[in-house]
Amino acid sequence: MSEKFDLAKWLGDSTEKVNRSLDFYLPPEDQKPIVLHKAMRYSVFAGGKRVRPAILLAAAEACGGNAEPALPLACAIECIHTYSLIHDDLPAMDNDDFRRGRPTSHKVFGEGIAILAGDGLLTEAFAIASRWDAVERYSHKNITAELAYHSGSLQMVGGQAIDLESEGKAISLEELKYIHERKTSALLCLSTRLGAMSANATPERLEALTVFGYKVGLAFQIIDDILDITQSTEKLGKTAGKDVQEQKATYPALLGLEKSKTLAAELTQEAFSSLDIFEGKAVALSALAQYLLKRDH
Amino acid sequence: MSEKFDLAKWLGDSTEKVNRSLDFYLPPEDQKPIVLHKAMRYSVFAGGKRVRPAILLAAAEACGGNAEPALPLACAIECIHTYSLIHDDLPAMDNDDFRRGRPTSHKVFGEGIAILAGDGLLTEAFAIASRWDAVERYSHKNITAELAYHSGSLQMVGGQAIDLESEGKAISLEELKYIHERKTSALLCLSTRLGAMSANATPERLEALTVFGYKVGLAFQIIDDILDITQSTEKLGKTAGKDVQEQKATYPALLGLEKSKTLAAELTQEAFSSLDIFEGKAVALSALAQYLLKRDH
Repeated sequence: MSEKFDLAKWLGDSTEKVNRSLDFYLPPEDQKPIVLHKAMRYSVFAGGKRVRPAILLAAAEACGGNAEPALPLACAIECIHTYSLIHDDLPAMDNDDFRRGRPTSHKVFGEGIAILAGDGLLTEAFAIASRWDAVERYSHKNITAELAYHSGSLQMVGGQAIDLESEGKAISLEELKYIHERKTSALLCLSTRLGAMSANATPERLEALTVFGYKVGLAFQIIDDILDITQSTEKLGKTAGKDVQEQKATYPALLGLEKSKTLAAELTQEAFSSLDIFEGKAVALSALAQYLLKRDH
Repeated sequence: MSEKFDLAKWLGDSTEKVNRSLDFYLPPEDQKPIVLHKAMRYSVFAGGKRVRPAILLAAAEACGGNAEPALPLACAIECIHTYSLIHDDLPAMDNDDFRRGRPTSHKVFGEGIAILAGDGLLTEAFAIASRWDAVERYSHKNITAELAYHSGSLQMVGGQAIDLESEGKAISLEELKYIHERKTSALLCLSTRLGAMSANATPERLEALTVFGYKVGLAFQIIDDILDITQSTEKLGKTAGKDVQEQKATYPALLGLEKSKTLAAELTQEAFSSLDIFEGKAVALSALAQYLLKRDH
């Protein structure tokens, strides 16, 4: 079954649905304040691969749900992801001038508007999520709490704070894991969980998908660290060895290359094992994880 | 009845409840990431007068409700108000080094952590609101949509964006009204509306309180503009005439002093009239508005 699944087609379909919904939910560019709405849309429609919405929709499918009712939640997560990139790119944070080959928000609109565009998108995420229709097991109270927890000071924003604090310092493996869990796993867990909740998943399935999101996220980050030192710049499409140059803490630097590879393989294996209870119905989710984790660039 | 009402005592009680609840809901300072949670609490407990929570609780009372069940919503609004101050004070925005005599967040914690503390508080506002218990007429879906609308790109954040864009430019009265409505009235409307909703208010009372919040907010701003040019620095407790010096657009500058005074009086009158349907039960709310609008400094 899994052999015949056409991930490219599935991803194309889901991306189209998510893009159409984002365009529908976000205030139009010609609505006042025009510069703010332009800035919000500039970053949302900057060529993102919609990985988190895809994972959310695939998790909903695995639990027997459909994409349509889950779209407000998929768009909410993409707004949160996008706001976090806008704020992370600011001079006071990572100070990045380019993202995906385009100038970052503050380079185009100025720092003030970039900060407000991020604030606007974070707020809009909750507005869009409020348009979701509740299901028997999960209410709006649950959904709002989920969104706020995984993207808040104990998870995503917290990871960014520790990352910022760690700049230029030697950090422990434990600290690095803390950052990776929060900067990557948090929103992946949120994606699988909201997908499951939108499909009225049983608590067992919700738990299995939480483990899946967490392990895929951590494995993804470790593989990213490994590829940075093992692959050429040409193959990566970005400057290879950047982490080493910047003396950035990475799994290979702290744990060694071989142990890092073993750990990534173990996490990947555990992630796939957590899907066993879906008895072959988590086809899209499994294919997506393969795509994210079995890469060499 | 109104003569006997002890506003100072009522305000003391409500402030104590709000402060206790904020302390309970916000992550403790010793919870990782410590610097982030310290920054969030530094600004939340910076001596704010809790005007918006007080208005929310007074609106709930006017509709026959109690303070206790409304406290999560009161705290949510205070978190949103506080995050907006942190981001407004940033160098890329108003660039203020002091607020209420204390150094602003970015002066103490650095710009990066200040941005994240704002993000954390905005997110936490929704987490805290999710702890509210829904009532018959109003659900969590309604509450989340309210919070996001009034604090989002069409209201509060939008006002800040236009204010930022207008810096050093000559703006029209229409534009100034747009900014005042969004920077002040939006959160006051949100306060009265959430208070009403927490008390399961009828649609008529909700509407009356919306008008009240809007008019009190706008009148407050116009009076603020007037006091800046008519009062001494000593009496204001801040530098008088600052608006004129900075060539900032104000109601007196655009409309003249007398017309501004008339407009403020009309708005104040209309605000109080909107409370007529409460037949004397909006005692605290009425006293609060008196306190906010009948001031000479």
